[in-house]
Order: sequence, then structure tokens, then C-alpha cells
Amino acid sequence: MSEVTKITGPLAIIAGQGPLPCVLAEAVAAHEIPLHIVALRGEADEEIERFPHTWMKWGEIGKLFGALEKSGCNDLVIIGAVNRPDFGNVRPDFGAIKALPFLLGLGKGGDDSVLSRIVNYFEDKGYRVHGAGDVAPELLAGEGMLSTKTPSAEDKTDIEIAFKVVRALGRLDVGQGAIVAKGRVLAVEAAEGTDAMLQRCADLRTSGRTRGARAGVLVKAPKPGQEERIDMPTIGPETLRKAAAAGLAGIAVAAGRVLLAERAATIEAANENKLFLVGENWDEIDD
Amino acid sequence: MSEVTKITGPLAIIAGQGPLPCVLAEAVAAHEIPLHIVALRGEADEEIERFPHTWMKWGEIGKLFGALEKSGCNDLVIIGAVNRPDFGNVRPDFGAIKALPFLLGLGKGGDDSVLSRIVNYFEDKGYRVHGAGDVAPELLAGEGMLSTKTPSAEDKTDIEIAFKVVRALGRLDVGQGAIVAKGRVLAVEAAEGTDAMLQRCADLRTSGRTRGARAGVLVKAPKPGQEERIDMPTIGPETLRKAAAAGLAGIAVAAGRVLLAERAATIEAANENKLFLVGENWDEIDD
Repeated sequence: MSEVTKITGPLAIIAGQGPLPCVLAEAVAAHEIPLHIVALRGEADEEIERFPHTWMKWGEIGKLFGALEKSGCNDLVIIGAVNRPDFGNVRPDFGAIKALPFLLGLGKGGDDSVLSRIVNYFEDKGYRVHGAGDVAPELLAGEGMLSTKTPSAEDKTDIEIAFKVVRALGRLDVGQGAIVAKGRVLAVEAAEGTDAMLQRCADLRTSGRTRGARAGVLVKAPKPGQEERIDMPTIGPETLRKAAAAGLAGIAVAAGRVLLAERAATIEAANENKLFLVGENWDEIDD
Repeated sequence: MSEVTKITGPLAIIAGQGPLPCVLAEAVAAHEIPLHIVALRGEADEEIERFPHTWMKWGEIGKLFGALEKSGCNDLVIIGAVNRPDFGNVRPDFGAIKALPFLLGLGKGGDDSVLSRIVNYFEDKGYRVHGAGDVAPELLAGEGMLSTKTPSAEDKTDIEIAFKVVRALGRLDVGQGAIVAKGRVLAVEAAEGTDAMLQRCADLRTSGRTRGARAGVLVKAPKPGQEERIDMPTIGPETLRKAAAAGLAGIAVAAGRVLLAERAATIEAANENKLFLVGENWDEIDD
């Protein structure tokens, strides 16, 4: 786990989808660090306009670096999912033409190699790339119980198996999550994301392929060696609601390595849905 | 890989869903081995009535063993998927009451442990349990190209990665399949099955999260140590059609370890959809 990073100058937030860019911007503002959001058009929420910002399109690499320079940002956080661009629809600006060999390489390979290349690209230009958890550690799930409900002995066994699955897969650059119920691995996350995986388990239930009382656990953890600075596993209130719909008993996350998109609302959603939510010491779980 | 089993006496086929029980019955009949199908009501296709048969419901364990005895079968093959029974709706006969401790244990654990317990249960009673491929090896996908189209160099890399994923997961008693495109693991199969996994990849394409020309491969292989006698990975024409809809370039299977549900129709579906279909020597692929 990385130490908290002390940032003095202004911070750029390169914003993709979802609530996280704004949640982070609020946290950064609370730390009294000046910030500027560079928001990806078609991906980022308009909500980000509450903060100093620049909109850019895929391919407007020149505009991106112009915004970073103008706002005096040498430190940046890249946050929020983005769809892989359809290069056929990207209209590159002059900055993008220079970056073309780099951009063309992004269509290939596992998530991790793509993300590492993005981080390297910024670092090669002298920027410092941080994880959201590094600049605002209060956004991370810590170790211990977050919910009122606690896991049963059976849940604990499921948690252990799910961590093993995530660990084995992470070595192959796959996913950040798995669902295990009564010792059986119901679902493994790859490119579809956590929400789709939970929906799948809800479908298994509806179709009668899993049955009975609530059982099972979703585990979220980073892949070993994952580029956590720009792809940290994340859960939010919606994750809890979907886990309840999938008939699970709770969620376990790797402590200090998973972002809570909206902390209070996430914990509330756990309690409302009678799910446990726990941060497990990831390093202690052996395989 | 197991040797071809010489069966002399009559063979019982305990039949679940899909075309495989009938395909196997035809193959067995062609070998001039007498057979009797014990078909699970609500699971097996009525098509099985073409052959000597007994229908049984979940819980009618007494009826099952009665049918085996009456037809003089000491050898049996269990084939075709079944849903895990909803024990609340099972009306056990006298045979089932004796088997109750065994039945109650089936609700728990990974697929493999459940399947091994079923095999052990029959073996403890003196029956010999065979794999479909053991009694009718012509149903297995052999090594080498089955389709007209052949995999590209990029496809071969995807095949290798997908075999690694299936192998790593199999050790944890998960799934029999994975989909990899351009070096990226798109989907991993767990409890949802191959068709649902392919549908997911089709959805990723529709939603724009994967794009471009056809790329990627579905790999099917047994889990290491899998109870292949009753849970052999299987593909059929529908698998090929779904792979095409998911935008894949082809399918690779572990040679000699995967059943082709309907051989001619499966190969035809590969050619019609311009997909490659290849049997790879599973033991040669290292990790």
C-alpha cells in the first residue's frame, strides 16, 4: 500500500465516468489543494462543471496538455471508467499526431498493460501520476467492519475462496472481483465489470440455478501488480443494492486498496439491505 | 486422457438436458451395445423416448436403481446438464430416504466436489461410471483443424492466454472456458455456462466496449482434475453461432477432452460462420 502523498501545487483530475471525479474533487478541495478537472466529453458527468474545468474529446491530446500547463498542474489523478475509444471516430489534434504511435498501441493487450502505458506516457513528460487514494485516503475502505451485519463462518470461507480466485486471476491480468456462495464460485469478473457480474448472479437466482436463503459474497481486490493509480477497484451504494438483488450475504474488499465512491451512502446501503461490508487485510490472505 | 472402454453388457444412460443423451445413445447403438436411458423428468428431452427408457423425478432414487437392475446395467454414463434440484420440491421415494445424507450434501461446494460425490455414490454401489467419450470416442474433438478457416498468429496468442486462464481457474474448481481477444481477457466462465459467457461478449460489442474486426477466441478445456466422466466440456452448432455473434474469430478446444454435441452440424456451423475450430493438444500447453 502506498503512503499518503503530500501535494503542494495544483492537482489535475482527468475525469471519466461516474461520481468519483466529483467525489475526489470535493475531497481535494477540502484539503485546500487547488484543482483543475480535464473532463472527457461523452464520458464525464456534467456535474464536474462545479469545479474549474476543461472539456476535451478523445484525440485532443494537445488540448489536454494545454489545460495542464495553463492551470500549472504537474500532479494528476486519472479517475472514472472510460470506454476504449473507437479510433475511427477520433479526430486527432496536433498534440495527438505527435502521440500517435502511443495511441495506436492502446487498442491491444490486457487492461494492465494499457493502463501502465498511459501512466508511463504522462511520467515521461514529467508529470507525477497519483492514485485517488494517495491524495485523499479518506476515500479508501479501511480494515474492519463497515456495516452493522457481520459475516458468518460460512461467509468467511466464501470470502477466503473468492480472494484466492481474484489473486489467481490477477496474475493473468484479469478482473478485480469474484462471487462465491457456499463454496461454489458463481462468477468471475473480466471485461464486463462488477455490475454485470452481479446481474449475472441475480439471473442465476431467477432461473433457479442457485436457490435458498441469502448466501455468498462479492470480493473486490486489486490485481497483483495492478496499476492502482488509475484503475483502483471501486464500490458504491449501487454495488450494495445489486449485491442484495443477487441474493448475496455481503461484500468484502481488500482494505486500503478499494475506493468507496460515496462512503456514507455506501455504508447506509449495506445496512438498509442487511448486507455485511468488510475490509479484509489483503496481504494476510495467503494462497 | 482415458482409454476407450470396452463395454460388453448393457449400458445405462442417465440423461439430463440437451441433445447429448440421444447423440450418445445413437453412437452406443451403432457399437451394438444394448442400452437403457433413465431420463430425469423436467430436464431430459422427450426425444429420448426413441430408445428403451424409464422416466424418473428428482428424489426417485429407488426408481433409478430399480430401472438399472431391471435392465441389467452395471455400466453407466451420466450426461446432459441438470439444474441443481430445489430440495423443497423433491418428493423422495424409499430409495431416496436411504440416500438422504448423500443428497443433503449435494447443495454445497464447487461443481467438482459435487460431481465426484455423485460418481463415488454409484461406484460404492458397485456400478462402473464411464465418460461419454470413453464409450464413444468418435464424439470427442480430436487434435488439429476441424474447420476450413485457420487461426492467425494473433489468434494463436489469444488461444495460449485463454488456455492459461482456464488452467489457473481450474485449480480453484471454476469453469471450463474463457474468451480472450487481442491479448485481453474479455470473459471467464463460472456458474453461468458458456452460452451466457458468449452472450456477454456480444453485449460488450453492442455497448461499444469492444470494437473493430472480428477478433478473439473461446477456449474450452476441462478443469485439471475435473470429474470428466460426468462433466465433460461440450460444444455444439449453437456455440459456434453464438461465438460468431460475439464477434470472435474462432474456438479452440482441448483435443480429446471436449465433446462435439453434433459433430457434422458443429463443423458446418464453424464454416458457415467463417470461424476456425481447432483441437489443441492440451498437455503441450504450459503455464
